[in-house]
Amino acid sequence: MKVGEKNYRTIWLKEEEPKVICIIDQRHLPHHFIIEELHTTNEVAVAISDMHIRGAGLIGATAAYGMYLATIEASEKKSFEEHLQQSAKLLKSTRPTAVNLEWAVNRMLDAISTVQFVDEKLIIAKKTALFIADEDANHCKNIGLNGLSIIEEISKKKNGEIVNILTHCNAGWLAFVDHGSATAPIYEAFARGIKIHVWVDETRPRNQGASLTAWELLNQGVPHTIIADNTGGHLMQHGMVDMVITGADRVTRIGDAANKIGTYLKALAAKDNQIPFYVALPSSTFDWKISDGIKQIQIEERNSDEVKYMTGLCDGEIKKILVTPEKSNAANYGFDVTPARLITGLITERGVCKANEKEILNLFPEQK
Amino acid sequence: MKVGEKNYRTIWLKEEEPKVICIIDQRHLPHHFIIEELHTTNEVAVAISDMHIRGAGLIGATAAYGMYLATIEASEKKSFEEHLQQSAKLLKSTRPTAVNLEWAVNRMLDAISTVQFVDEKLIIAKKTALFIADEDANHCKNIGLNGLSIIEEISKKKNGEIVNILTHCNAGWLAFVDHGSATAPIYEAFARGIKIHVWVDETRPRNQGASLTAWELLNQGVPHTIIADNTGGHLMQHGMVDMVITGADRVTRIGDAANKIGTYLKALAAKDNQIPFYVALPSSTFDWKISDGIKQIQIEERNSDEVKYMTGLCDGEIKKILVTPEKSNAANYGFDVTPARLITGLITERGVCKANEKEILNLFPEQK
Repeated sequence: MKVGEKNYRTIWLKEEEPKVICIIDQRHLPHHFIIEELHTTNEVAVAISDMHIRGAGLIGATAAYGMYLATIEASEKKSFEEHLQQSAKLLKSTRPTAVNLEWAVNRMLDAISTVQFVDEKLIIAKKTALFIADEDANHCKNIGLNGLSIIEEISKKKNGEIVNILTHCNAGWLAFVDHGSATAPIYEAFARGIKIHVWVDETRPRNQGASLTAWELLNQGVPHTIIADNTGGHLMQHGMVDMVITGADRVTRIGDAANKIGTYLKALAAKDNQIPFYVALPSSTFDWKISDGIKQIQIEERNSDEVKYMTGLCDGEIKKILVTPEKSNAANYGFDVTPARLITGLITERGVCKANEKEILNLFPEQK
Repeated sequence: MKVGEKNYRTIWLKEEEPKVICIIDQRHLPHHFIIEELHTTNEVAVAISDMHIRGAGLIGATAAYGMYLATIEASEKKSFEEHLQQSAKLLKSTRPTAVNLEWAVNRMLDAISTVQFVDEKLIIAKKTALFIADEDANHCKNIGLNGLSIIEEISKKKNGEIVNILTHCNAGWLAFVDHGSATAPIYEAFARGIKIHVWVDETRPRNQGASLTAWELLNQGVPHTIIADNTGGHLMQHGMVDMVITGADRVTRIGDAANKIGTYLKALAAKDNQIPFYVALPSSTFDWKISDGIKQIQIEERNSDEVKYMTGLCDGEIKKILVTPEKSNAANYGFDVTPARLITGLITERGVCKANEKEILNLFPEQK
């Protein structure tokens, strides 16, 4: 997607040094656009756990690239397999909720194990990492095309008036390799001249909506308005939201969706006001092993300082301010689970389906 | 209530100069405790509209004191009545959602009009303002006693285990003259040794929970944890909330409650998880003229900079940081309306009742 006049993906190999991974360090957005180079598996692990990058698809792709670096490192060690397994363990431990992480690391391990010699392992590791990234971008492109028809239909019903779409957190191209999941249909609709406007939930405590989604939409020229997370219910009560699209970090085989904390509240409000609520996800986000999202999905608890302190621009510099009494406790749950019953549909790369096991497995029969 | 070792109300007349109003300038909390002196009706109007003070009860009491200053000013003008009416209009225009504002100003006008001479008008204006403030504090005290029984019952059911109470925004003593509405039952329960813990919603965009409610609870020694507004649904899904108590800015005769933006979302989550949801309010918060809160209550739209910028402590100084792209739009709706059907009960100074017209009018038969 565009940053200024140039097109970017969120992760790529450095052209002149293909053993170096380039990422956009998202901690500096929306104020500064900084490209970071990662040289080791450890640096990749830090980039994931400290959220230089984040988002389901991009976490997966970054972990895959991390396993490519691990393969290079392992090839220089006595015990290839030991370093590879240790690296896999390290990368998997960086974030607990996103299913793509484990999925990508396992896929890399499987691919690497299909060949015998280290030279071959290096080749297949690179190839697989690139493939995972390309596949992520392609899946998002298809999510966009599949979600487009939903927006087109609403636009028709409204006789071409502006379609107001609410989104929570950043399930944009910054959360994937390109296009995004929740934003992909938005970008497709905008590119076709459909009149749209996006309500962007700020998404406390890390403000991914206010800092990342808003920045994305601004760069693409899509009309948008940032709101406090508290606002969506009021807007829905007053007919100011036509649909909700969010991403997901883990979706069960019956359609329960773990996503950024607060998603569940918007789904409740959408249901209460008969507004369609869609979750957009590539199939890599499904966790086919589990059904009950509330009972079975582990919710990451992050450092409470993310609630107590906020970061932003002050006199041209990034500053961190305390927004609570210093001695008060805070808690920081990263995700919540939206039960399938509140979800109108899932937008995947293979098509749109209702959030129930039967319809999901119709799209993904290989998981039956 | 206590600040350090000393007891305070939120508004009082300066002892040595009873024509000067003292308030706590809440914009500096929780970082600095600053008492501001107000000398004119205009200063009072600014203090209300720029939110040096806020909260249903305190807005009412401050407007009443403002009308006392207006009476003094009017007594020095040629046209007493003209200045008084202008001042009333000015004060009423400072905030559109809180019903207490209009109620308090009208009550002052009524009282002042019952006597003929300016000297008498000055005396009755002061007396009525003090009475409105005392009444507010007494009503809150009774709300505390009436709400206490609800907490006691939950505590018994849990065999004395910790009762977890979630609250949104600040309906604490800082929102009234003393005790608070939503916090009053909490303070009563805590004073009686009932084990409680309060989940404090941060309450974006102005952070009244993180900055005011947390500060209050810290000063009283009540165990509490600050959370992002997005978090309550997740906590409720996992049995970590036993009850919700919020305040209100305007409640209709059938029980629809306008309160800080985001309250409606918590009420939906409470309903979805069968958790009791109470609204605590003095009777001055009822708007007896209206029924349908969503259609009939005007929702204040505030400056979007309150969403785009945040204020907090950095290196010992209060700093303001930009948290969004500078060029992105933001919207700032101050309140939402929770329909009566989502409210378990209303806690008033006269008792607890269900949120429907019949039960409300049983408590307030004079409004039939």
